[in-house]
Amino acid sequence: MVAVGSTLPKVTLWENKPEEVVEFPSQGKFIIVGVPGAFTPPCSSQVPGYIANEKQFAAKGISGIYVVAVNDVFVTKAWKKSFDGGEQSGVHFVADWNGEFTKAFDAGFDASGLLGPLRSKRYAAVVENGKVVKVFIENEVTDVDISSADKVLSSL
Amino acid sequence: MVAVGSTLPKVTLWENKPEEVVEFPSQGKFIIVGVPGAFTPPCSSQVPGYIANEKQFAAKGISGIYVVAVNDVFVTKAWKKSFDGGEQSGVHFVADWNGEFTKAFDAGFDASGLLGPLRSKRYAAVVENGKVVKVFIENEVTDVDISSADKVLSSL
Repeated sequence: MVAVGSTLPKVTLWENKPEEVVEFPSQGKFIIVGVPGAFTPPCSSQVPGYIANEKQFAAKGISGIYVVAVNDVFVTKAWKKSFDGGEQSGVHFVADWNGEFTKAFDAGFDASGLLGPLRSKRYAAVVENGKVVKVFIENEVTDVDISSADKVLSSL
Repeated sequence: MVAVGSTLPKVTLWENKPEEVVEFPSQGKFIIVGVPGAFTPPCSSQVPGYIANEKQFAAKGISGIYVVAVNDVFVTKAWKKSFDGGEQSGVHFVADWNGEFTKAFDAGFDASGLLGPLRSKRYAAVVENGKVVKVFIENEVTDVDISSADKVLSSL
């Protein structure tokens, strides 16, 4: 499971549209928020906190927030648009369409019967200079507690 | 590939929310519209025609229109909501979340690199008393021509 010291998997990820590749900063601090699925109720309740607190995170040295879901790029783009202020926000909605990043980050679970055979657990990872320095993994994928924007922000 | 005479696969499909099972009518005529993915540009250009022509289809004896995509039910619900008049429309947005229906209907293709390993080709099938009586399969999954609402409506 993704842990302190984990390095970032080298997987091509997109946002907004096909071929618009996501480049994680190799230096500095940013946050990856892994979520089970775009448009699911718990994930849609978790994300607004990150959109609303973008400046507060930046004030603590966070250069970017990357919400990663095992959905295709058309779905993640539509999901971003669905939030108040989502489209203008600098939060990245990242399509791990085949789950390769999630698998390599050892952050997946089998959501067969509801979402699909491979989805991302709910977690927040603070990454600094390419390595995970803090990670908050929810016990239940439907929980939005330790990986919520407030809790992660207050941990910085 | 789905063809005239094909019978409907017995696969559990949902719409709107988990456990809200889709029941295809065993009698009468309805239409299944298979699409590669919710929120993709061609699919989002194809669907409004079916929403707009719901009454015209009913006037020709069509009891229901079922848009089937290999997406989960949270995505198909959000997609329905994204269209003008979508939420009020009687068009069913059906989640074939694991592609079982699409596979059994022999209507799938590998969309790896963009959407996922299994997605639905673009087709429209007129089903009567449980059997396909007409089918319009696009040569290219990005084409919206013979399976468009206008063309299918005029074929009835």
